[in-house]
Amino acid sequence: MVTFLSGGTGTPKLLSGADAVFDPQDVAVVGNTGDDVELGGHLVCPDVDTVLYLRGDRLDRDTWWGIAEDSATTHEELLDLADAAGIDAGPRYLDDEHQTAGRRIARWRRFSGVGEFMHIGDADRAVHITRTSLLDEGHSLTAATRMLADAFNLTVDLLPMSDDPVAIIVHTESGPMHFQEFWVARSGEPAIESVEFRGAAAATTTDAVREALSEPVIIGPSNPITSLGPMIALEGIREALAETPVVAVSPFVEDTVFSGPADDLMRAEGYEASTAGVAEAYPFADAFVLDEDDGTDLGRPVVRTDTKMDDEADATRVARAVNEALEAIR
Amino acid sequence: MVTFLSGGTGTPKLLSGADAVFDPQDVAVVGNTGDDVELGGHLVCPDVDTVLYLRGDRLDRDTWWGIAEDSATTHEELLDLADAAGIDAGPRYLDDEHQTAGRRIARWRRFSGVGEFMHIGDADRAVHITRTSLLDEGHSLTAATRMLADAFNLTVDLLPMSDDPVAIIVHTESGPMHFQEFWVARSGEPAIESVEFRGAAAATTTDAVREALSEPVIIGPSNPITSLGPMIALEGIREALAETPVVAVSPFVEDTVFSGPADDLMRAEGYEASTAGVAEAYPFADAFVLDEDDGTDLGRPVVRTDTKMDDEADATRVARAVNEALEAIR
Repeated sequence: MVTFLSGGTGTPKLLSGADAVFDPQDVAVVGNTGDDVELGGHLVCPDVDTVLYLRGDRLDRDTWWGIAEDSATTHEELLDLADAAGIDAGPRYLDDEHQTAGRRIARWRRFSGVGEFMHIGDADRAVHITRTSLLDEGHSLTAATRMLADAFNLTVDLLPMSDDPVAIIVHTESGPMHFQEFWVARSGEPAIESVEFRGAAAATTTDAVREALSEPVIIGPSNPITSLGPMIALEGIREALAETPVVAVSPFVEDTVFSGPADDLMRAEGYEASTAGVAEAYPFADAFVLDEDDGTDLGRPVVRTDTKMDDEADATRVARAVNEALEAIR
Repeated sequence: MVTFLSGGTGTPKLLSGADAVFDPQDVAVVGNTGDDVELGGHLVCPDVDTVLYLRGDRLDRDTWWGIAEDSATTHEELLDLADAAGIDAGPRYLDDEHQTAGRRIARWRRFSGVGEFMHIGDADRAVHITRTSLLDEGHSLTAATRMLADAFNLTVDLLPMSDDPVAIIVHTESGPMHFQEFWVARSGEPAIESVEFRGAAAATTTDAVREALSEPVIIGPSNPITSLGPMIALEGIREALAETPVVAVSPFVEDTVFSGPADDLMRAEGYEASTAGVAEAYPFADAFVLDEDDGTDLGRPVVRTDTKMDDEADATRVARAVNEALEAIR
């Protein structure tokens, strides 16, 4: 058994070629839920869904989110309606009362659906409706995710990091905003002052995740702050990671990031935007997989390979390096 | 100024040809909201939306609900997902706590969206999302409806009967069920024992409706029980109708109903399923428009015409008869 910690696109890319190295029946994937939002009343779990769609063979592999060849009729109509009614499009936060009242899944991540600011495909939306309705019916997010995983014929065990709400709030020079506003609506442009995992102190992980973390853990080249940070902030997870073998793949080649906002976020949180910074952010990592061009000396076991992943063959190559690193520390 | 009371398809059909007789700038339409449901978290207002789509020139005129040529990608995916996960499709009521907690729009009309039991088109869904999000943002249903009417370029003033929730509960031999379960999911088949307008005693109408009801009122050939009943049950509406000139178009030709479940519902509520029964249900109606083949003697002024409406020319003919009846009693 091995357990992947997944968020954003880095770890999903690694997962796309992992089956040649790790038997999927023996794989658990813990998904970040810190960047989840409730949009128009429905819980959208971008990081969990990327794994759901990837492993269900329906992922849009151009974007690494959403369902391939999905239409967006409802989304486009939402934009047209807001425009026709003269209503500003999103992001539109609900007011204080609505942020905390009603559905218990809220934790300052609720947005009105008017002028929907995230692109939600029509088939994708069905997943959000099904998930939210399962929660409304009384299921936990873990149970709802397993029911969806069943519907998508997943062979790996996909687990949200928590059944409790955690919201990544990015504090910027333009004020605090949810990560999805920062990243989707504002293209990651506002200068970052700090990152908060709102709700993380009160949230706990689940029994299923605790069990998964008793196995060796693989952290793919995901963003250490917004993809992994919310998980690491949860009571029980950091401690579990300290006790189990952990291999991390750096999302940097020395100080160059592969994609996404990791570098600005790392600096804002006081880390060097580099492989060395990642190692500092992951004190529990026992070994690393670095790019063959990355000469960083970490003082921990390192396996080097070409870590750029453009297709499944690339991912399998990196997965083999991960396995090699894992065998070195077990 | 004239005000139409609308529900189901009868009054909308009349409205489709009314402009030749009544200047739309001088027309208000009060829509029944007693058969509204919250499905997957979104407030669906079938009777208000039929008028919205009709007057916005987007109505599917084959069904008289939904948007013409709308796709249903999300809906079909919802059914596929429920099937793939082995979850029974709807109707799936939420539990007691969820029926009354959280969003204040609830009144025993909340259904999970899993296996969505009503057909919701993709563009149609955008309307429900926009409406529900406007409510979440703090707007009243009246204000949200006006914003949607603006987006759909309506020339008439479309008003929901109330900003408060009212739910038609049909008590049947198979137990109590929301009208939409009775009609959509069970095809109107369970034998009806009685009809309840849950929430009507606590609900009030709006200032906008009260003002509209100070004008002459036209009731189209809608179902007196489930399309008009919830309105008539509201405090203030029955009294207002008693004081203003009211013309009603019978949905029957003597004892033959044009369409829908009106006959069973009339009998269950102790009325004859006929034009005579309609007149008994509408004690405030000052005149009637009956079909030329309907010889019922009502003891109130009557204008007769061919009341079958298959196209706008038919509707204009009936609207002229309504205007004639109205002039006779003003």
